[in-house]
Amino acid sequence: MSELKNLIVGQSGGPTAAINATLAGVIKAGADNPAIGKVYGMVNGIMGMLEKNIKDLDALSQDDKKIELLKKTPASFLGSCRYKLPKDDISVYEKIFEILEEYNIGYFFYIGGNDSMDTAAKLSKYANENGKDIKFLGVAKTIDNDLPEMDHTPGFGSAAKYIATTTREVGTDAAIYAVKSVEIIEVMGRDAGWLAGSSALSGIGGVGPDLIYLPERAFSLEEMYEDIEEIFKTKQHILIVVSEGIRDNKGEYVCNFASASELDAFGHKQLGGTGKVLESLIKERFGVKVRSIELNTPQRCASHILSKTDIDESFNTGYSAVGAATEGKTGVVMAIKRVSDNPYQVTFEAVDVNKVANEARIVPADYINERGNYVTEKFIEYVKPLVQGEITPDYENGIPKFLLFDEI
Amino acid sequence: MSELKNLIVGQSGGPTAAINATLAGVIKAGADNPAIGKVYGMVNGIMGMLEKNIKDLDALSQDDKKIELLKKTPASFLGSCRYKLPKDDISVYEKIFEILEEYNIGYFFYIGGNDSMDTAAKLSKYANENGKDIKFLGVAKTIDNDLPEMDHTPGFGSAAKYIATTTREVGTDAAIYAVKSVEIIEVMGRDAGWLAGSSALSGIGGVGPDLIYLPERAFSLEEMYEDIEEIFKTKQHILIVVSEGIRDNKGEYVCNFASASELDAFGHKQLGGTGKVLESLIKERFGVKVRSIELNTPQRCASHILSKTDIDESFNTGYSAVGAATEGKTGVVMAIKRVSDNPYQVTFEAVDVNKVANEARIVPADYINERGNYVTEKFIEYVKPLVQGEITPDYENGIPKFLLFDEI
Repeated sequence: MSELKNLIVGQSGGPTAAINATLAGVIKAGADNPAIGKVYGMVNGIMGMLEKNIKDLDALSQDDKKIELLKKTPASFLGSCRYKLPKDDISVYEKIFEILEEYNIGYFFYIGGNDSMDTAAKLSKYANENGKDIKFLGVAKTIDNDLPEMDHTPGFGSAAKYIATTTREVGTDAAIYAVKSVEIIEVMGRDAGWLAGSSALSGIGGVGPDLIYLPERAFSLEEMYEDIEEIFKTKQHILIVVSEGIRDNKGEYVCNFASASELDAFGHKQLGGTGKVLESLIKERFGVKVRSIELNTPQRCASHILSKTDIDESFNTGYSAVGAATEGKTGVVMAIKRVSDNPYQVTFEAVDVNKVANEARIVPADYINERGNYVTEKFIEYVKPLVQGEITPDYENGIPKFLLFDEI
Repeated sequence: MSELKNLIVGQSGGPTAAINATLAGVIKAGADNPAIGKVYGMVNGIMGMLEKNIKDLDALSQDDKKIELLKKTPASFLGSCRYKLPKDDISVYEKIFEILEEYNIGYFFYIGGNDSMDTAAKLSKYANENGKDIKFLGVAKTIDNDLPEMDHTPGFGSAAKYIATTTREVGTDAAIYAVKSVEIIEVMGRDAGWLAGSSALSGIGGVGPDLIYLPERAFSLEEMYEDIEEIFKTKQHILIVVSEGIRDNKGEYVCNFASASELDAFGHKQLGGTGKVLESLIKERFGVKVRSIELNTPQRCASHILSKTDIDESFNTGYSAVGAATEGKTGVVMAIKRVSDNPYQVTFEAVDVNKVANEARIVPADYINERGNYVTEKFIEYVKPLVQGEITPDYENGIPKFLLFDEI
């Protein structure tokens, strides 16, 4: 039987503003590649696929205008899921392969973070062990930039651009009154401070943070008080950026420092709120005006201010993954590797998905200053190329237009 | 003495993303107008002026590139203050006029909201009563859009554009999992729901709110529960936009509904948090995934996504105020009046500042639906023209560049 094998692609885990650019890359490559038959999408990831919730994407793959719009559309266009494949329940694997064979799938692409890489790893292992000729590739995405084996992750650059931009705007806004004040911006990042550190870009030629605290370094309240006191000697307005995940040298999360603030309306323990806790503490200590802002999900879905570098790379990551698959690669993930800083150049390499799955990459020690309250020049040189360039949204009635699932 | 009278301009109250476009309009008109001598700026509003913290803006007024950049710069470029002129303390008035005369000021422009209009009203009254030949004009700004005697306020359109855009992005992001969920977006607006209502624009041709609650209507928790239950019958993901100031029929703010959530780390009463309170309540009631986002200050300072209509009008409001002043008007504020919806056209008219000061304009009854859980077509037709058009930021190193005070 010389029938061409088909391709299926799915998205999993938390979304980013660039995850659909990667999806667009896979879909487009699927259409361009003569070795591939039809292009299918899993709706709501592998969970949807297990219920045969599978969408024919051939029409979309031929529509360049829609593909372009997909690249600028936030969130997971195909829907997502949070699902970790069981290690031992063989029946789930059998079910998956039954469906894959029914759809004559030869190439399986899973766009996601750690858990999704784990899924790709397990399925490719199962295929190898059971003589199934299906290629399984992970395609990395995460705003957290915490995956190993790659220079950076698709999605990070756009989040960094949004965070640096918003930091500058909020910092400018916070400095208008002639009274001492502290502004705190809380950004995402449970274990890695890549996003918090990116806010330093706003300080180049404009208002930027005075202090940045990353989860890689033990947070000391006393040292922060000293930092604030020192800065107040020369300026009135202090801007602090913190990762949500900062914790003290005993491993206690700052968001758990205060007991009252943990409780919600029903006395339940409430997570998050690192900024709010620091706001209370600094207000109490210094008696100045303090405000905190949690950037929240807009930092991962602000498609109206994308990094062109990120979107191009995200697309190419998806596109090149298809080429790797038809060349016979399986159990790999496409990694962005930096060739040079100046000019900024990257290549895409297939790396063993097992090396990526279930590992985390934190900010290296020499990217954070000695005091642990800012990033170094090395960090800035690293992140600067990733936020370059803009993608103009397609405005309709004054609001950016996105591709809708019902439209394909 | 035939020496030309000088102009002074100041900014007061909370900032917007368009308040500097208005400042740019006043400065440019000051340079263009042959009846005007020098152009001065009050640093930190009237409080700064009382300390002779006055900046010569002549060089800036001649630099078109910087004027253009000023139009795209958020927050109050000259600094701001929160200061209400005393009614009876004559010495403050004497001090002000002494300084104005020292600088040979003939034209005084105060850009701000309610309190600033009150300042312009009082100073113009004092000038009239004491034979001082200085024109005092208020120049309106507020994202809240709650000033009377005008179709809308400068600054509102850009905030509305940001809110509608972010609502669509967050709503898209929130709908990726195949499980029931509620997403709540809390926007500014203590007494007026103009900003919350603007989120409805995101629903035209894209993901938008299912429910919008404005402070103009008494909020009923039971009715909201009914609304949610009804919507869950046909869709999985519910998006709710609320004004921070919604309250029940007894006038109790929703943010005060829950007692525990009011307390900060030190047991102090904490304001704000309408979204958080609703998040807790809905979670408890429906047992579904609920998340809330407070858009916070970015909604008033997101200069990377400005409404061109708003920025042009904000500039023209300032520019035309100077013309009105040299024509002899005082004690007035320049109001944007809508001439027609289609094509959208406006004019700028001087209206009595006393009619604007200390009054608020809420969303009219026929702009809100009967159930009080959404806006009507009339609201949408009203707000749509105000968010049209874009202003491209000046990106430098991937981040929008703003004019810095030290650069002028």
